[in-house]
Amino acid sequence: MVKIVPLPPVLAHTDGAAALQAQFAHPLKAVDALIAQRLASPVATIPEIGAHVIRAGGKRLRPLLTLASAALCRPEAEPPIKLAAAVELLHTATLLHDDVVDGSEKRRGLPSARARWGNAASVLVGDFLLGQAFKLMVESASPEALPVLANAAAVIAEGEVMQLLTAGKVDVNEDAYLRVINAKTAELFAAAARVGSLSAGAAPNAQEALAAYGRNLGIAFQLSDDALDYDRHARLGKNWGDDFREGKMTLPLILAYHRGDTKERRFWQAAVARPRKSKASLNQAESLVLRHRALADTLARAAHYAAIAQDALRLFPPSPGRTGLMRLAGFSAARRH
Amino acid sequence: MVKIVPLPPVLAHTDGAAALQAQFAHPLKAVDALIAQRLASPVATIPEIGAHVIRAGGKRLRPLLTLASAALCRPEAEPPIKLAAAVELLHTATLLHDDVVDGSEKRRGLPSARARWGNAASVLVGDFLLGQAFKLMVESASPEALPVLANAAAVIAEGEVMQLLTAGKVDVNEDAYLRVINAKTAELFAAAARVGSLSAGAAPNAQEALAAYGRNLGIAFQLSDDALDYDRHARLGKNWGDDFREGKMTLPLILAYHRGDTKERRFWQAAVARPRKSKASLNQAESLVLRHRALADTLARAAHYAAIAQDALRLFPPSPGRTGLMRLAGFSAARRH
Repeated sequence: MVKIVPLPPVLAHTDGAAALQAQFAHPLKAVDALIAQRLASPVATIPEIGAHVIRAGGKRLRPLLTLASAALCRPEAEPPIKLAAAVELLHTATLLHDDVVDGSEKRRGLPSARARWGNAASVLVGDFLLGQAFKLMVESASPEALPVLANAAAVIAEGEVMQLLTAGKVDVNEDAYLRVINAKTAELFAAAARVGSLSAGAAPNAQEALAAYGRNLGIAFQLSDDALDYDRHARLGKNWGDDFREGKMTLPLILAYHRGDTKERRFWQAAVARPRKSKASLNQAESLVLRHRALADTLARAAHYAAIAQDALRLFPPSPGRTGLMRLAGFSAARRH
Repeated sequence: MVKIVPLPPVLAHTDGAAALQAQFAHPLKAVDALIAQRLASPVATIPEIGAHVIRAGGKRLRPLLTLASAALCRPEAEPPIKLAAAVELLHTATLLHDDVVDGSEKRRGLPSARARWGNAASVLVGDFLLGQAFKLMVESASPEALPVLANAAAVIAEGEVMQLLTAGKVDVNEDAYLRVINAKTAELFAAAARVGSLSAGAAPNAQEALAAYGRNLGIAFQLSDDALDYDRHARLGKNWGDDFREGKMTLPLILAYHRGDTKERRFWQAAVARPRKSKASLNQAESLVLRHRALADTLARAAHYAAIAQDALRLFPPSPGRTGLMRLAGFSAARRH
């Protein structure tokens, strides 16, 4: 009999992203308009794929981070629209390439671009978006943001390669996994926040605080995403169990493997190595993850990084902007969608 | 009976690239060392793939263009090593992605990276190289080169998407094809030359002259590449007839199609639409291309653009550097490898 361990209670405000989105609704609209303008091309497939993946991209967390960081450092500063758009385009390009790399059929409930337009077009339109992202960075009024974002682009790709190489290796440990998500996810969150602060001419300690906030928020966000993938009641817009199906070594699996006995480890080894996973092995994976509290503890780890993110913000005096970012961190470790 | 039309005589110095390579041997070595340094990563697959594709990348024409353009504008200027390395890394990233898009097995006689490491790693390492290219641009002492290269990155991808969309469409015309190669090939040649001149603080008319040289050189180079693909005696390091096999609409095919009669056009339509081409249809394609002088005329078109490139250089007084670039243009329209 499998004992189901209940999830920890929701840690914080589940409307954390919504509140911040409302606060920055106006500049976010300008970011979206700028992105739409830069997707324009006589080659119709480019705006089509671009619009599709931007729409499926969700909550605009990263440009929100850039805008909110700038506002926190200097409320009267001109919002860094170009930098925020560049950050979102960079993110969108990696989504397009990720789906090709993972062979994903869906992205937030919609068919992925590669499922609809093919791998070749997805690779090339991803490259186009990267080019547009760099153009926007260069055009922005913040030359000191350029090395930060250029470096993030290389580090993200490095993290993705690291993840690709660990795929199917059941004995990867939590530490190695943290290095992967630090690179592939948290680096862009850190860069998004840092360039926001740079655009506002923030002092070095404020820049570092926001970069630390972004990095830890990114880790919390990724871990919570990993947990939700094993939670069949979560509505993420992707298929439940996709990470397991693709042989991705994420924290729920890593914890369940390390906490398992010899027989269970043999199950994981065999299951992860098999290119196609049966319904039975998916169910077995779910019950092992639950039995070993691997899902609950992944969320607990997420809460740990969210708390670090929140504490990084205490350098700043209380303000609606700071509250919004605090809530976003709470939300990142407690999201259900 | 198929009448074989002989190729036009070699137009110019076939050692054109070699002479320029010798002239810039020292800075080119520095470019290679810098690239090797930037390929370093704890993730071993990255330097492995990077070294493989850089090695297979050939003649370093684009960084050579950057170095030679800078030297032509100001001989005593510090060679723009970082910009030249950035240009080569940008080019290398597109090679990695192109091979994925085309499903190519070979690249200059070696197995392609995707054949050896898979599509996923090739996409991601391409992204890593793009990131490193942008880092180098940002670090270079030429901020005015940034928008030029960022724009080139977007335009190249746009050209590749255009080419993808014309694949298999036999009725694409020469004008549309020129737009494709202007974007996917000539833009980077133009940018490589322009940023070289920018790094040397060249006057606007010198910048324009070198950009025009680079653009026309790039077109000549691509057309001659297209012709060689239909020449079974050429040794390009790729398989003879690959473009036809992949259903790519290049100028030899476009000319042969437009000059053909109804029966021949039906052959092209059927052959291009078929995913696998038989030996017989490959032979038939070759003989139609030869019968209609499509190969010879593709090389004649290449010579036209090479001549424009050469004339663009007449703005500069005679010098060994100018002679080297003139020869390179002649070579581009007459190369046999």
